[in-house]
Amino acid sequence: MTRSRMANEDKILLAHGSGGKMSHDLVEKAFVRALANPLLAPLDDSAVADFRGRLAFTTDSYVVTPIFFPGGDIGRLAVCGTVNDLSTSGARPLYLSLAFIIEEGLPLKDLQKVVESVRATAEEAGVQVITGDTKVVEHGSADRLFINTAGIGRIPAGVNISGSNASPGDKVLVSGTIGDHGIAVLSKRQGLSFGTRLKSDCAPLGKMVAGMVKSSRNLHSLRDPTRGGLATTLNELAKQSRVGIRIEETKIPVRDEVTGACEMLGLDPLYIANEGKMIAIVAPGGADNVLAAMKRDRYGKDAAIIGEVIAEHPGRVVMKTVLGSSRIVDMLVGEPLPRIC
Amino acid sequence: MTRSRMANEDKILLAHGSGGKMSHDLVEKAFVRALANPLLAPLDDSAVADFRGRLAFTTDSYVVTPIFFPGGDIGRLAVCGTVNDLSTSGARPLYLSLAFIIEEGLPLKDLQKVVESVRATAEEAGVQVITGDTKVVEHGSADRLFINTAGIGRIPAGVNISGSNASPGDKVLVSGTIGDHGIAVLSKRQGLSFGTRLKSDCAPLGKMVAGMVKSSRNLHSLRDPTRGGLATTLNELAKQSRVGIRIEETKIPVRDEVTGACEMLGLDPLYIANEGKMIAIVAPGGADNVLAAMKRDRYGKDAAIIGEVIAEHPGRVVMKTVLGSSRIVDMLVGEPLPRIC
Repeated sequence: MTRSRMANEDKILLAHGSGGKMSHDLVEKAFVRALANPLLAPLDDSAVADFRGRLAFTTDSYVVTPIFFPGGDIGRLAVCGTVNDLSTSGARPLYLSLAFIIEEGLPLKDLQKVVESVRATAEEAGVQVITGDTKVVEHGSADRLFINTAGIGRIPAGVNISGSNASPGDKVLVSGTIGDHGIAVLSKRQGLSFGTRLKSDCAPLGKMVAGMVKSSRNLHSLRDPTRGGLATTLNELAKQSRVGIRIEETKIPVRDEVTGACEMLGLDPLYIANEGKMIAIVAPGGADNVLAAMKRDRYGKDAAIIGEVIAEHPGRVVMKTVLGSSRIVDMLVGEPLPRIC
Repeated sequence: MTRSRMANEDKILLAHGSGGKMSHDLVEKAFVRALANPLLAPLDDSAVADFRGRLAFTTDSYVVTPIFFPGGDIGRLAVCGTVNDLSTSGARPLYLSLAFIIEEGLPLKDLQKVVESVRATAEEAGVQVITGDTKVVEHGSADRLFINTAGIGRIPAGVNISGSNASPGDKVLVSGTIGDHGIAVLSKRQGLSFGTRLKSDCAPLGKMVAGMVKSSRNLHSLRDPTRGGLATTLNELAKQSRVGIRIEETKIPVRDEVTGACEMLGLDPLYIANEGKMIAIVAPGGADNVLAAMKRDRYGKDAAIIGEVIAEHPGRVVMKTVLGSSRIVDMLVGEPLPRIC
């Protein structure tokens, strides 16, 4: 075997996306063996599963760069993001679809590393990948690897959680430190590298949320503060429920490394993406129970009550700053950090 | 307003993918208004729907170039491809997710045209888009627009259709002419343009398949011959069911324009992608009923019985050629036509 032939075999080629023999071999070798489960096994064009109840359905594409970053990679991200979106409706995440768009030339070992990360994260989250798709585009027509996952979950009877349920008097909780994901990814960008031991918070929150849902019937809203950060997500909740939200800057958990990097780069942690955090809005009587349920989970140890829902300023978020003054916290405008998820 | 400002407002910017204010405005303006339905309206991170029964779940990404082609565009393709994959399990397609990866600089009017096509095709197919996602990547990091759709359908009680159900003696049907999609897309490629009035066959086949399912209890397998064409899909079915498949070249419907273009380009219509065709494998007693059900539908007028399932040559497809000889028809090897879907 010649040297160039060996090199070719180590990279993804256009023919791997043809739908023909090389596609079948790649799917079998790189995906089916790693993700094996009884619902994926038939390899029909649709997977089939029995289902009864209230179904939650969501999708996200993942275009993060670089695809490997401290604390995770695009595969872990693609499972966590969709699992967490399902969790925001109180659903138990069950099934994922997994679609890869691969740039020709991606090393096969990078693909395998990402698929292994999908496998491990799906196992941790208790979900099964039951259907998938692979496309390959020419060198220069994509940036290494994009992943889309869609997810299906089941919402337990009696659970009614929505971004439109927040009421004045409710407490606002966050499950831990903010900004870790965005700053960790940024620290590995070409031309921007800076020394930090910070890791992405990228994590599947289904089990933590299941505990929170069980802990109180007063859980009104859940949302994971990804793109746009805590500030943007709180604004979404305020607008959707037509209420105001007041938060206290001193109560928001932020790691020193994130504060430091943000000062250096001129960024605000409130707008930095998170991939393993959940915001909860809870009627006052349930707030302590939900906080305790968060803290019992490995991903909620640093949870805190950071504010409350108010009748004033509907659709707005106001923050009592460290200095004691109040200011409006708007949605993210512009795009300081593209391709963070 | 300056000229450059106006030009900027007509194109998709990175900030449209930030998750912040411009993302919300774009989603509201370009997607939610066009696709409005009660399940999409809450705009929570997950859509919620009641469901009971056997659920079919599938996903595909669409990377076709060019994004507008004779007979369709990437939006119509993204609905049809996923609707048709659901139909291959006998499911009635119900819900779609819709995820866009947009290259910075895409004209807003192109995006709107694609979304309008999604809307019209979803309406025709009787499905609702109930959840979605938008990402924007830098100029040069994607090729204009990639779309992922995932789909959920319900399989009627008593229906059991799978690629593993083909049995010796079964008839092999195809719902119309082959190769139209691939050749229509190819005719618009830069450097390859050739004159043809050929249009893509891109069509949602849910209604035709519902008629076929009703027409006979003897419908064993369905599969849409997309990437890799009729030859590759028949090979998949033969392998999955561990049977042989014998087809007759003279019975396979092919348009003269496709034959002509294939001769000119050195391609074989058996390997060219279709996006509005269905292969059915039916026990002999049901074949005429299923054929009649195909022909009653606007997308099945040219349906034909093209061969049968045999016990010999398990996992293989053999073809009786125009000249009367027999030859093995293998899966597609290599990739003559990248980015056709």
